[in-house]
Amino acid sequence: MAERLQGIFTPNLVPMTSAGEINEGELRRYVDWLIERGVHGLYPNGSTGEFTRYTVEERRRIVEIIADQTAGRVPILAGAAEANVKETLRACEYYHSLGCRAVAIVAPFYYKLSPDSVYAYFREIGNNTPIDVTLYNIPMFASPIDVPTIQRLSEECDKIVAIKDSSGDIPNMIRMMQAVRPNRPDFSFMTGWDAALMPMILVGADGGTNASSGVVPELTRKLYDLTKSLQIDEARAIQYDLVKLFDAMLYSAEFPDGFRAAVDLRGFNMGRGRQPQSDHQRTGLEYLSATLQCMLASHGFTDEPVGGCPVGEAPSVDAGEVSRIVQSVLSEMKQRGMA
Amino acid sequence: MAERLQGIFTPNLVPMTSAGEINEGELRRYVDWLIERGVHGLYPNGSTGEFTRYTVEERRRIVEIIADQTAGRVPILAGAAEANVKETLRACEYYHSLGCRAVAIVAPFYYKLSPDSVYAYFREIGNNTPIDVTLYNIPMFASPIDVPTIQRLSEECDKIVAIKDSSGDIPNMIRMMQAVRPNRPDFSFMTGWDAALMPMILVGADGGTNASSGVVPELTRKLYDLTKSLQIDEARAIQYDLVKLFDAMLYSAEFPDGFRAAVDLRGFNMGRGRQPQSDHQRTGLEYLSATLQCMLASHGFTDEPVGGCPVGEAPSVDAGEVSRIVQSVLSEMKQRGMA
Amino acid sequence: MAERLQGIFTPNLVPMTSAGEINEGELRRYVDWLIERGVHGLYPNGSTGEFTRYTVEERRRIVEIIADQTAGRVPILAGAAEANVKETLRACEYYHSLGCRAVAIVAPFYYKLSPDSVYAYFREIGNNTPIDVTLYNIPMFASPIDVPTIQRLSEECDKIVAIKDSSGDIPNMIRMMQAVRPNRPDFSFMTGWDAALMPMILVGADGGTNASSGVVPELTRKLYDLTKSLQIDEARAIQYDLVKLFDAMLYSAEFPDGFRAAVDLRGFNMGRGRQPQSDHQRTGLEYLSATLQCMLASHGFTDEPVGGCPVGEAPSVDAGEVSRIVQSVLSEMKQRGMA
Amino acid sequence: MAERLQGIFTPNLVPMTSAGEINEGELRRYVDWLIERGVHGLYPNGSTGEFTRYTVEERRRIVEIIADQTAGRVPILAGAAEANVKETLRACEYYHSLGCRAVAIVAPFYYKLSPDSVYAYFREIGNNTPIDVTLYNIPMFASPIDVPTIQRLSEECDKIVAIKDSSGDIPNMIRMMQAVRPNRPDFSFMTGWDAALMPMILVGADGGTNASSGVVPELTRKLYDLTKSLQIDEARAIQYDLVKLFDAMLYSAEFPDGFRAAVDLRGFNMGRGRQPQSDHQRTGLEYLSATLQCMLASHGFTDEPVGGCPVGEAPSVDAGEVSRIVQSVLSEMKQRGMA
Repeated sequence: MAERLQGIFTPNLVPMTSAGEINEGELRRYVDWLIERGVHGLYPNGSTGEFTRYTVEERRRIVEIIADQTAGRVPILAGAAEANVKETLRACEYYHSLGCRAVAIVAPFYYKLSPDSVYAYFREIGNNTPIDVTLYNIPMFASPIDVPTIQRLSEECDKIVAIKDSSGDIPNMIRMMQAVRPNRPDFSFMTGWDAALMPMILVGADGGTNASSGVVPELTRKLYDLTKSLQIDEARAIQYDLVKLFDAMLYSAEFPDGFRAAVDLRGFNMGRGRQPQSDHQRTGLEYLSATLQCMLASHGFTDEPVGGCPVGEAPSVDAGEVSRIVQSVLSEMKQRGMA
Repeated sequence: MAERLQGIFTPNLVPMTSAGEINEGELRRYVDWLIERGVHGLYPNGSTGEFTRYTVEERRRIVEIIADQTAGRVPILAGAAEANVKETLRACEYYHSLGCRAVAIVAPFYYKLSPDSVYAYFREIGNNTPIDVTLYNIPMFASPIDVPTIQRLSEECDKIVAIKDSSGDIPNMIRMMQAVRPNRPDFSFMTGWDAALMPMILVGADGGTNASSGVVPELTRKLYDLTKSLQIDEARAIQYDLVKLFDAMLYSAEFPDGFRAAVDLRGFNMGRGRQPQSDHQRTGLEYLSATLQCMLASHGFTDEPVGGCPVGEAPSVDAGEVSRIVQSVLSEMKQRGMA
Repeated sequence: MAERLQGIFTPNLVPMTSAGEINEGELRRYVDWLIERGVHGLYPNGSTGEFTRYTVEERRRIVEIIADQTAGRVPILAGAAEANVKETLRACEYYHSLGCRAVAIVAPFYYKLSPDSVYAYFREIGNNTPIDVTLYNIPMFASPIDVPTIQRLSEECDKIVAIKDSSGDIPNMIRMMQAVRPNRPDFSFMTGWDAALMPMILVGADGGTNASSGVVPELTRKLYDLTKSLQIDEARAIQYDLVKLFDAMLYSAEFPDGFRAAVDLRGFNMGRGRQPQSDHQRTGLEYLSATLQCMLASHGFTDEPVGGCPVGEAPSVDAGEVSRIVQSVLSEMKQRGMA
Repeated sequence: MAERLQGIFTPNLVPMTSAGEINEGELRRYVDWLIERGVHGLYPNGSTGEFTRYTVEERRRIVEIIADQTAGRVPILAGAAEANVKETLRACEYYHSLGCRAVAIVAPFYYKLSPDSVYAYFREIGNNTPIDVTLYNIPMFASPIDVPTIQRLSEECDKIVAIKDSSGDIPNMIRMMQAVRPNRPDFSFMTGWDAALMPMILVGADGGTNASSGVVPELTRKLYDLTKSLQIDEARAIQYDLVKLFDAMLYSAEFPDGFRAAVDLRGFNMGRGRQPQSDHQRTGLEYLSATLQCMLASHGFTDEPVGGCPVGEAPSVDAGEVSRIVQSVLSEMKQRGMA
């Protein structure tokens, strides 16, 4: 039996060329860099990896590159959700053939499905997949996978071996573990909500698929190790820093552009994501980048920006927001003949 | 200049073969039937048409068949949303080459985008599309397109000519019309919320893209005509009936399976949709079908089911729900050793 | 049997003295002014009347003053919700003794109750009240009263004679009327959402309890009359204007301060409401007041402000918002050492 | 300076006589019982204490009785929210005169206030209160108190000394602590969400105001002690049990009736709460009570019910729900002539 999923899996961002295509060279370099910094696994085609913005062929190409470059050094969890059950199963087969450890499949999105439908969907996949499946629960974006559904699927489908939960809801994670573990001690519980990583592990989760591990793999890995060894005070301090960094990347720009900007600062050429940006957003990202650089510099991951950083606490203000606000005020005042 | 969009456009359901593929013959027959019953246009690849559950190639094939069968008798509004701007523009070009009147493009979904991003997305499409574009606002499923964004896009992009709004929010429709019409009197406002069709038209909307027009095109068309000619009492009576029918189809089964079941009753072989169903759901759909048959029979669109219908008011109880509840109670009682 | 509730009932704002007490003289003057301008009834202790911010004794005093000043000229619908069923019934008895036509009782708030509990609450009131009861559904603030609950209460309690619905959801209003009217043709349906008044009446509602009728009673009454007599084009034009005015009053300040500011402009000394305001909010209200003055002036209800109004369309920008934004930007820039 | 708030504060339920009045004798007995079982403080007039369902005079009476019976053995945190700032300050003064340690004040409810208004409200209270104030954030029921507002109030008002947060959102608790502690190391952070008590303390919270501590004070106290002493495995096991018990009490009946039923099982005569119950609800509560008795018996807090308990895992099914469902099915089937 394959090893149980645990530790920190990095949901891969995809570097783009100036022509808007996958930047294979930079992606390979990024994979090496992540593995060298200690992440336990890689997770292409997740939400962070903007899977919905690629074509079927591109999603396959991303996993091909990552699997080839990883060459077995760490396990790969490949996002495999496609347009329908048949297409998703085809992806499962392909990622299995590439040697991936498991796939992660988000519940159907766009339509908000009932628990019955979510069950029927995963049941059909679970019964036909050649590769282990991780359920992916992200109620903010997709149909939620509720606790009774997880329990039922875990009992009926051996191939369903884990859940990745991105809700950040700790009591609900406890409910999942209570419902599933008595019958499936091998089932794995991963959190996708970086701001709750330490407490999630302390209540019993097995690890995380955390976007911030693509930016500061050293820090996320250290947080995981300190928490597992119950060095609570040290872990808490890092968790606090991670909340600040995570919030800045998550809330100051359209997801995942803040994360892309931060990986740029670590020395990669991420290029522009596929979602077009307004002028305001581009200005906002420049401000955000300066803020992030100060945060990363305070941990020694980058130099300070030219002009230096504020002393004391890193600024909690959303720099991008300020820029957007200023421009919006000016344009409103102009419209009203006030400026 | 092309004629302004108005009237009732039917969001096409897609009949499936028993092998789970597009049933071309039945789709062609359905197109003829709809046009003969007076709908003003057709609208493939909408939410009712389950566009997310088909592959890129299938979405194209659906429009090909419908355009070919329609042969210019009514205008076609083709859903053209794909994975990203570039792919969406390719679809725009293709549907343009097929002679469609316009495309409808839903705001990006899965990720919840800010107004700035929604603007940037449609702006890039509006600047590059060869075919007229209808914005598709369905905040229940996709990133909302707010009033300032609609106003801005209508002012900057001539190729953006309409909005289809499925929120059913009448004051918001008024806000849209107030914001856009002074500068763009040619802009069209369509409602996708059947339960509000009459009042939407009375406050100034141009028509609707209404799923129920795929089931009872005669009734939806009649409601439109009566409302336009201000026969308020007659229109209101039909609107009331439509609310009942719409609610039964919408809330008693996973969308759009209730609509598919109703079209079956009108004499088409719709087959099964692509989203798998649980046993409970299949039983529920059978109950629902009997309820729908009584509703349709009361208008003379079908015979009554064997065994007849309740006298007086059509039952407002959700038959599928009863079935689901009974089964769920029995199974819970069994689990608890109570039965 | 008492006459069925219909027409426009004004939810009374309460003028305050500079000491923060009820301004009886101004309230009496306001009552006369409203009645003279044609509202069909008065409605003290609604949400607009800030009933939660007064003591039990003050709520009674407000109704006393209004009932005394009205002296039977128009019917009074008195808000009677108190801490629990017993206290609410005491208020029912008192308002009955004052000659009110009916009471309006909001569903319990703070706790979000299930339909079963909402039913049990109103059932106990309905069985013991000496005065007719209007259910008050405002799901944005209080536990929702769903359609089956309304139907059940209407069938079991003769004393429950109406519903005031402030959701603005037109299909849901249709559902209520379909569920209740067959058995209770005397039951009355009032909308509390001014932005949907015209379409609500066209689908069958009996009238409205509309906050804007406390500001522009002439206009609200005219909209009601034009709609009832099916002068659709004329009614639509007024409904559009009312949406603009309503939005400005509702969304540009904390509710109901925008309405209070507008009544000030009609010549009343409303004083300050009981909810404290920040400096930003006070500045925002001054901007809003100028915007409202232009809107009211365009209908001839006030003079233009010193300095005049923008030509053409009244500004749709939220003036208060601009002020708040400017101050917030400046203070954020200061915090960051940027200004 | 008074001691910092920490540990477990019990939000007091109020026993009622059969006449629906406060049962003083039982309340005094309950206070002694709680203190003897180790809770660190008492918290009358919280949400669990159904403060909104009592009159002003009753709320005062409840604190009087509890303060008198406590006689200084543990600190009292008294819920002091009244209709407006002036009335709330009066309550602050009165509870100060009774020797309470602090008051807890929920943000204004019914109306959903902006952060600016929430700030202005608490600022005015903070500037005028004679007794220490705990902000009470419960976004599910009242206007939320966001992090910038908490930070600002903590910096401007010395008398505001703590926040009780009932959201259960751990990352947000971290954000609060990061924003406030640098300037106010004396500020206290309490969680009101029992299902997250252990992880909340591990990330730095000072304690909890937890409804379950009114039912199983021994267990809640033990969880607190084990967590503080970093006995993580032991604490986790208790946290898991507490989630189960908390969920059963919270979700199987209208809040707080499940908690009232459980305290009955501990030997108190709680009587009926003030919110009327339907027949279904009463039946549901009987089922729930049997479930709770098994849960409590498994910890040795009660005997098993007559007939015994299921072996192995306590049932996770919601017994009340089953009852409600069965009755609802039967009544629906009857209505439809099916039974």
